[in-house]
Amino acid sequence: MSKVVEPRTLPGFMELLPSQQIQFNIMVDKIRKSYEKFGFLPLDTPIIEMAEVLLAKAGGETEKQIYRFDKGDNDLALRFDLTVPLAKYVTEYYNALTFPFKRYQIGKVYRGERPQKGRYREFYQCDIDIIGDGELSIINDAEMPSVIYTTFKELGFEDFTIRINNRKILNGLFEELNLKDTSVDIMRIIDKLEKIGKDNVIKCLQDINISNEKIDKIMNFLEIDGTTDDKIDSLKNLNFTNELFVKGLEELEQVVKYVRLFGVPDNNFKVDLTIARGLDYYTGTVYETFLDYYREIGSVCSGGRYENLSEFYTDRKMPGVGVSIGLTRLFYKLNELEIIKEDKKSISKVLVVSMIDDNSKSLEVADMFRKSGINTDIYLEDKKIKAKFKYADKLQIPYVAIIGEEEVKNGTLSLKNMETGEQEQLSIEEAIEKIKV
Amino acid sequence: MSKVVEPRTLPGFMELLPSQQIQFNIMVDKIRKSYEKFGFLPLDTPIIEMAEVLLAKAGGETEKQIYRFDKGDNDLALRFDLTVPLAKYVTEYYNALTFPFKRYQIGKVYRGERPQKGRYREFYQCDIDIIGDGELSIINDAEMPSVIYTTFKELGFEDFTIRINNRKILNGLFEELNLKDTSVDIMRIIDKLEKIGKDNVIKCLQDINISNEKIDKIMNFLEIDGTTDDKIDSLKNLNFTNELFVKGLEELEQVVKYVRLFGVPDNNFKVDLTIARGLDYYTGTVYETFLDYYREIGSVCSGGRYENLSEFYTDRKMPGVGVSIGLTRLFYKLNELEIIKEDKKSISKVLVVSMIDDNSKSLEVADMFRKSGINTDIYLEDKKIKAKFKYADKLQIPYVAIIGEEEVKNGTLSLKNMETGEQEQLSIEEAIEKIKV
Repeated sequence: MSKVVEPRTLPGFMELLPSQQIQFNIMVDKIRKSYEKFGFLPLDTPIIEMAEVLLAKAGGETEKQIYRFDKGDNDLALRFDLTVPLAKYVTEYYNALTFPFKRYQIGKVYRGERPQKGRYREFYQCDIDIIGDGELSIINDAEMPSVIYTTFKELGFEDFTIRINNRKILNGLFEELNLKDTSVDIMRIIDKLEKIGKDNVIKCLQDINISNEKIDKIMNFLEIDGTTDDKIDSLKNLNFTNELFVKGLEELEQVVKYVRLFGVPDNNFKVDLTIARGLDYYTGTVYETFLDYYREIGSVCSGGRYENLSEFYTDRKMPGVGVSIGLTRLFYKLNELEIIKEDKKSISKVLVVSMIDDNSKSLEVADMFRKSGINTDIYLEDKKIKAKFKYADKLQIPYVAIIGEEEVKNGTLSLKNMETGEQEQLSIEEAIEKIKV
Repeated sequence: MSKVVEPRTLPGFMELLPSQQIQFNIMVDKIRKSYEKFGFLPLDTPIIEMAEVLLAKAGGETEKQIYRFDKGDNDLALRFDLTVPLAKYVTEYYNALTFPFKRYQIGKVYRGERPQKGRYREFYQCDIDIIGDGELSIINDAEMPSVIYTTFKELGFEDFTIRINNRKILNGLFEELNLKDTSVDIMRIIDKLEKIGKDNVIKCLQDINISNEKIDKIMNFLEIDGTTDDKIDSLKNLNFTNELFVKGLEELEQVVKYVRLFGVPDNNFKVDLTIARGLDYYTGTVYETFLDYYREIGSVCSGGRYENLSEFYTDRKMPGVGVSIGLTRLFYKLNELEIIKEDKKSISKVLVVSMIDDNSKSLEVADMFRKSGINTDIYLEDKKIKAKFKYADKLQIPYVAIIGEEEVKNGTLSLKNMETGEQEQLSIEEAIEKIKV
């Protein structure tokens, strides 16, 4: 039969070669292990939900990007994040859950964005959230940086900074300055500080008719600098009496105190008063995480505190705090920057090859390797020995166990170290010891 | 804000409570670990593909059940199995892959079936396949039962039987009897043997005008009984000269020989001449696996050999052999039958609770536990001690580490074993030793 259809993968959908997939899975495993180390429970929700349920809260960009379709009588959609399914889940199963409910979810989400380099339409999010029933202690806000710190250390990073702010401080500032009504516009401008510079920010603020006096106060606020403790002192010295501001500052101080008690070194976190994180959702602590030498990647782990997770599904108040790693994009960027420099990784530790027609001994050896817990591949095709070694080489398998006539006679095998080229005759037990190291 | 949308999950979509999710994930981990032990490489393909690519081969039921929709100018569909994406993948990345290409994929697939108890529209498949470039040794057909055996043992099953047949034997029989044209109808009838009984099978065969002489031969064939070796001897004694039959018998004999060499005990596999597995796809060895005491679940792991994986995408011949576990349905059935009887499982091994207002010591202890590799939860809410123990109890966390005034003074903690109720004062190091056991 001749070819009918061109096999191809949709743009914006990551599909990896096995050697990259192994690296990707190692990252997923480390993230999962680290989340579980903090007692987060696993969750797996459907990728398809009723559109009405998924879109209860959404609007604007989200509605445009969502994959939505009919099947039978149902108006369906693919999840575009893991937070809305969580809100649904905790409301639906409220009575069966134990609060605070700490869950992690690692799964694919879908957004039909305009395709461009490094932007994916299907991508993994790795989320943790802690959901309270009615209330949730501020100390949970300090656990998040502790999880982020542990996770990124586990992933092999040393130089990263978790930037922490509190939305109440920003909102309190705007209230204090009687700028509550334009706060959305101001935040949008402030958010560009790093990109457009101080002078342009001032110009933009003037353009929306903020008085110079107030602009001064905003800029003074944004330019608060120094160590984490300096910044908190400076904020106190502003002597703002606005209730929201005072509350936010109190929370930030608490979070900083507990983040240290959680064992996160000052090297790896700082207060950053310019972090706002979107406009509506978060109500208190917010986080962004940057790789110090790769700021251009953007935040690699973000999140914050929200007052009310499930307000569109229930009157029950469920405050929460959470962060998310956008793993697909992070993996893409790490590869692009050639930062993933781990040792060569293979699934199998050894490849068994037979030099003789009778495969009996090879199968027996492979079985013994596997029973000893060693991932073992076996080359079963009738090819020249060169092809067999090439297979091991291409899959980066570190050892090849060779079974020839002599080996069968002696009850031994020849073990070749593929990196050094060394080859030695060993008993099966000796080979197992060697491979396991 | 009052409730706007009723939070609910679509029928036919499995969503588990955390305690069940933990059990489910344990099964996934065991399957993955077992697949990797045989050197299969991980693969993760998109859930969305172009409809044209996914449906290149499909038709009938598949087309009706598929989730298909437009997004922008694209005609898209959700994958309904992991085999078609594999066919696409090996063709698309042919030049970058190493053959034989051994891959596993564990992922969700979608079929809009009529909803009924125990049937899912979103479900996990756990697939392994070995794909050859042009050819693939018959010994690979013997590796499949070895993987199935190892996997189900790993999952805790003892009493299961892998049933093996070869489609060439059935097709050869029909050729030999000059019944090639009605072979599809005959197979459909034979497939019902266990359900409708011998007499009804004969009646059905008479109804489609098969001569009594030929019906006798078919029934003689189907009634071949005894041990695996007896069956092979009986097949030989039929003295059929049909080329396909002879080839199939030779393959079956080889597979049985190598399955034994792979270390699968005769208790756990047998030749079953009635296994046909669908009608078009498989061309040689076929497998079904049954739990001996729960035949009603149906086959829990099936698959077979196919001549040409990617015939709709390329002229290149790529034969393969593979099996699949339908994990969502299996998990549902095991729960329904209350077969999952593992020990209580929790993510955290210990919950740290503070009896005093100052959480410093508790955070320090939790941090030390985690650094020792212990999954550790910490109760941070300002609740009565009873609520804290209830939390540990509901999450089935085996230990609670209590930090009170005395413990802070002594630099110790009180460790309570939640199962026995025993409580003892220990140093942090002693506690770590105890919890780690």
